[in-house]
Amino acid sequence: MTDAATNMRLKLPITCFILEIILIILFGTLVQYDHETDAKQWHNQSHEDYENDFYFRYPSFQDVHVMIFIGFGFLMTFLQRYGFSSVGFNFLIAAFALQWATLMQGFFHGLHGGKIHIGVESMINADFCTGSVLISFGAVLGKTSPVQLLVMAMFEVTLFAVNEFILLSILGTRDAGGSMTIHTFGAYFGLMVTRVLYRPNLDKSKHRNCSVYHSDLFAMIGTIYLWMFWPSFNSAITAHGDDQHRTAMNTYYSLAACTLSTYGMSALTAHDGKLDMVHIQNAALAGGVAVGTAGEMMLTPFGSMIVGFLAGVISVLGFKYLSPILEDKLKIQDTCGVHNLHGMPGVLGAIVGAVTAALASTDVYGGGLSDVFPDVASGDVTATKQGGIQAASLAVTLGIALLGGLIVGFILKLPIFGAPPDTICFEDSIYWEVNGDVSPAVD
Amino acid sequence: MTDAATNMRLKLPITCFILEIILIILFGTLVQYDHETDAKQWHNQSHEDYENDFYFRYPSFQDVHVMIFIGFGFLMTFLQRYGFSSVGFNFLIAAFALQWATLMQGFFHGLHGGKIHIGVESMINADFCTGSVLISFGAVLGKTSPVQLLVMAMFEVTLFAVNEFILLSILGTRDAGGSMTIHTFGAYFGLMVTRVLYRPNLDKSKHRNCSVYHSDLFAMIGTIYLWMFWPSFNSAITAHGDDQHRTAMNTYYSLAACTLSTYGMSALTAHDGKLDMVHIQNAALAGGVAVGTAGEMMLTPFGSMIVGFLAGVISVLGFKYLSPILEDKLKIQDTCGVHNLHGMPGVLGAIVGAVTAALASTDVYGGGLSDVFPDVASGDVTATKQGGIQAASLAVTLGIALLGGLIVGFILKLPIFGAPPDTICFEDSIYWEVNGDVSPAVD
Amino acid sequence: MTDAATNMRLKLPITCFILEIILIILFGTLVQYDHETDAKQWHNQSHEDYENDFYFRYPSFQDVHVMIFIGFGFLMTFLQRYGFSSVGFNFLIAAFALQWATLMQGFFHGLHGGKIHIGVESMINADFCTGSVLISFGAVLGKTSPVQLLVMAMFEVTLFAVNEFILLSILGTRDAGGSMTIHTFGAYFGLMVTRVLYRPNLDKSKHRNCSVYHSDLFAMIGTIYLWMFWPSFNSAITAHGDDQHRTAMNTYYSLAACTLSTYGMSALTAHDGKLDMVHIQNAALAGGVAVGTAGEMMLTPFGSMIVGFLAGVISVLGFKYLSPILEDKLKIQDTCGVHNLHGMPGVLGAIVGAVTAALASTDVYGGGLSDVFPDVASGDVTATKQGGIQAASLAVTLGIALLGGLIVGFILKLPIFGAPPDTICFEDSIYWEVNGDVSPAVD
Repeated sequence: MTDAATNMRLKLPITCFILEIILIILFGTLVQYDHETDAKQWHNQSHEDYENDFYFRYPSFQDVHVMIFIGFGFLMTFLQRYGFSSVGFNFLIAAFALQWATLMQGFFHGLHGGKIHIGVESMINADFCTGSVLISFGAVLGKTSPVQLLVMAMFEVTLFAVNEFILLSILGTRDAGGSMTIHTFGAYFGLMVTRVLYRPNLDKSKHRNCSVYHSDLFAMIGTIYLWMFWPSFNSAITAHGDDQHRTAMNTYYSLAACTLSTYGMSALTAHDGKLDMVHIQNAALAGGVAVGTAGEMMLTPFGSMIVGFLAGVISVLGFKYLSPILEDKLKIQDTCGVHNLHGMPGVLGAIVGAVTAALASTDVYGGGLSDVFPDVASGDVTATKQGGIQAASLAVTLGIALLGGLIVGFILKLPIFGAPPDTICFEDSIYWEVNGDVSPAVD
Repeated sequence: MTDAATNMRLKLPITCFILEIILIILFGTLVQYDHETDAKQWHNQSHEDYENDFYFRYPSFQDVHVMIFIGFGFLMTFLQRYGFSSVGFNFLIAAFALQWATLMQGFFHGLHGGKIHIGVESMINADFCTGSVLISFGAVLGKTSPVQLLVMAMFEVTLFAVNEFILLSILGTRDAGGSMTIHTFGAYFGLMVTRVLYRPNLDKSKHRNCSVYHSDLFAMIGTIYLWMFWPSFNSAITAHGDDQHRTAMNTYYSLAACTLSTYGMSALTAHDGKLDMVHIQNAALAGGVAVGTAGEMMLTPFGSMIVGFLAGVISVLGFKYLSPILEDKLKIQDTCGVHNLHGMPGVLGAIVGAVTAALASTDVYGGGLSDVFPDVASGDVTATKQGGIQAASLAVTLGIALLGGLIVGFILKLPIFGAPPDTICFEDSIYWEVNGDVSPAVD
Repeated sequence: MTDAATNMRLKLPITCFILEIILIILFGTLVQYDHETDAKQWHNQSHEDYENDFYFRYPSFQDVHVMIFIGFGFLMTFLQRYGFSSVGFNFLIAAFALQWATLMQGFFHGLHGGKIHIGVESMINADFCTGSVLISFGAVLGKTSPVQLLVMAMFEVTLFAVNEFILLSILGTRDAGGSMTIHTFGAYFGLMVTRVLYRPNLDKSKHRNCSVYHSDLFAMIGTIYLWMFWPSFNSAITAHGDDQHRTAMNTYYSLAACTLSTYGMSALTAHDGKLDMVHIQNAALAGGVAVGTAGEMMLTPFGSMIVGFLAGVISVLGFKYLSPILEDKLKIQDTCGVHNLHGMPGVLGAIVGAVTAALASTDVYGGGLSDVFPDVASGDVTATKQGGIQAASLAVTLGIALLGGLIVGFILKLPIFGAPPDTICFEDSIYWEVNGDVSPAVD
């Protein structure tokens, strides 16, 4: 089940080694401890140990880390014969992307005397950027080689950093949980890549493009971890104090409301009134995506629940009615349905964020306005203008994602990366040693 | 495998949507950020960011959250054909219950100008209340429809809040880890519900009421997470400082001792000297339940280990000898054996708490007495009296749980909720789309 | 499939009960709360609650706890018929070892008026010691009875505490993440035990000494958790502030680099250019082991990545080329390949630590030198000397581990512990009730 084209004996080692050696050289040249991780600098200053940012953010970082490696990794194990690749390629490209993201984000977010300074906040940001790559991975799942995925990750991380720089640093956009920078960007980038990589004969692998009983249970591990730790994700880089606290709580209630609307919609739309695991595994998470921008704002639990409720509804409707249209009419083969989990809910989140920002006032935020909307607090822009900036940022993000995905998609079409043939998609054994008996349920 | 009665096409959506819309309206009317999540209030006061309760409790909250959604959810996947429902219904009813609990507990624990104030502590309390509902779910597992479960959750959360109010606010009971309020209440409520829902012909589904190899491994994910994070559970809402620290440590040693007695008892009582997965999955956790009340007290690791050891012993004995009697004589069909994991160990925990409270003194607690026993420290009651209050609280809890379970059980018997027939219990495919091949091990 | 020798009906209960009763008695006699868990002592002093060590270390502790129980436990479930034992015996011996380690480490690390004082730091240390036992368990996996494992744990914990005492307290070695004390010690101890327990006819169980599809996925749960939380492991007991922060970050980058070299080497060396799950599950973790000593030092992310990269390379090479030689020539039957994951990377970590220590200077560490190298900061030793001490510590560790393993191996050969015969190794059903159908993939 291997032919020369998909054989990874040289392609993958060469790619891994070259990338890692480049990373090591660049880290050696460019990267330094920041003042909270450097022994000398930390001890040069006068402060208490508990003021170190580590104690404010490391628990959140670890939750985010779990979402990236367990959450995304296991969510995609729902395919019956693609569990090794789902967890394993997720692992590989995330380990690469977080290193590359450290450099790209460090470069764009401001050098210090030509050096990139890193600490727990940059680690979280690197994981966030990695998350965006993994969303795109979901769109092309089962149809790409590990070398293609690494190449995609390299370009996508770079473009992510460019978009993030434009939004956060140039425009002054607020997007702590990444409805735009992470979810919208990752989804539409991935959708465009999978469009360019369209496989007219993917039907030949159709019998493997579904779940078996236990693969769905493995996927639920991913779902539940993503769901539980989303409050930590959205609050991981918000300001210390009330901001982290409020963001986590808004997300918590959004997700809870989203879960109820997902179950309701699933039973309503699925065959015979039965619940569909695809909906539960994915749409129940849309509530986290949809408060990614507004979660840190004074959205209130009430507002969060309305947003979460709507996110669940549109996500299930997307899986049921829109995905087949995207595939049939637009030739977008979106394996995991990232358009429904990250795309539409991300756009919803951007809009909610724009509206909530436009309504901001000192009356509501008091002295906390400068944490959430520093440009409004300083008088540089009005709240209405901030809302407009937020909306414009969505357009910028969509533009960069789609254009970037288009270009990267064509790069990935080069026949040198060892992509699987249409007949052997969604199949681990093309890239992995798989013992004789695999799973009784296949072929 | 579906007939009209169990078809969820309308029943489940209507229930989910009505409940969620009611929740949203009530949240909009009644719920506000507390002074640590509200931007204006937090910035109005003078304090450091690290003093925000978020940093004291959020890591514990996340551990509790994992217990609720992964711990309870996967623990119940031991059944061979009920994995989707175990994780999935756990997910649904927990997402509902935590919202409803926010309102019920907020209402009983004190309104602020007619408003419920929420933050990380209320989130933990909501998760705690949810845990109680999930314990009751364990008793009726495999025999109820999702609509029944939501209805049960609605009533049980309400009664939980009433009982909790009587204990904590009226009587002044101490029960930080919920031996009484969570475990005893959830277990006996669930046992009474399953008694009322007695199914004389459940034998017809008996062949599905057992595990297969991999379903037992999935269940171990739940067990181990519950075991690991129980120290966080018991310490999540104890006082800052030594109290959280001590509670976590007491629980850690109680669980370790419980594990050894569980393995010993399992080999001693099981067939042919072989270990029984049911014991390991459940009884090893009884040590966490049994120090739920006394864990915050000066129980010492020594005392904790004795309690944990005993809890493991009685829990295995319960599984081996008492459960068959409950089923045959009292017609209590307790699918997960919650009487052995939560019922008896909860009662043990209440008694241990009463005794430990009665022995409290300034000599032992010093200035910390006011954190653990405020009423004793203030002189309102003697330590002996506090012990008596603790013991009385157990009786109150049992009474409300049993009476509440009786009433709610009869409500759940109404033929409108789509319960499965006796022949199709413990079976996912009645409420879930399940792909053709399920698991090779069935029917 | 049971005969009298392996029947655990009496052996296991007697062992568990005697051990636990001894533990309880010793805890009652010797163990006290430390000043941060004791109500009276904490309230006698003047400090803020957020200064309690609980808030500095408990999140790390919980991550370590997950590594011990989920990480190690599930990593070993890769065997097709040994999942119950992998998770279950891991659970049992860890629960025992952490109690025994509290006593042994407390005894060696200094008594306070004849008493052992415990808190979150001692809990972390107990879990660390337990980790060492679980590494040795990996070497003998599938070939030992639970009673043998408990006996092994009892002796190994004791020797671990002796070695740790010599290194940390007598020699003044630095080894926060335990490259030497945990990994090197555990690996070489276990390798010597398995050498002494050599089974010439193990071939008869060969057909069970491999994975099936879903068992490899369960194992990936263990791998990913170990990988994600290794930054917490290495930083769990380093000094507050920059030290914990820096250690976590160094480990994060070491692991990321290790993952890329592991994938590259796996494709390069494995059959047909395909990735081998054994490499991914294990070698990708070697980067955490290899910065166990130097992680808290000013190794820089650059240095960490080089170390991680090398660790991945040598680990895969070990699995591919060295393990077969160890088995054929040296008769070391190392089920999990702990030599490749913990042995060689542990030695590498010790060497890296020695070199990094020898290069330490006030110029680089500033006022932080006293946190990382107190003896150098105080002028008691030079940095070069510290490097020499580190190197000597490796030799001491290897000596105690090998000699200890030799003796304990012979003790475990006593025919009274119920070890399985050569024909029924790697088989759950000898010690566990296993339902009729197990997994379709066997025998």
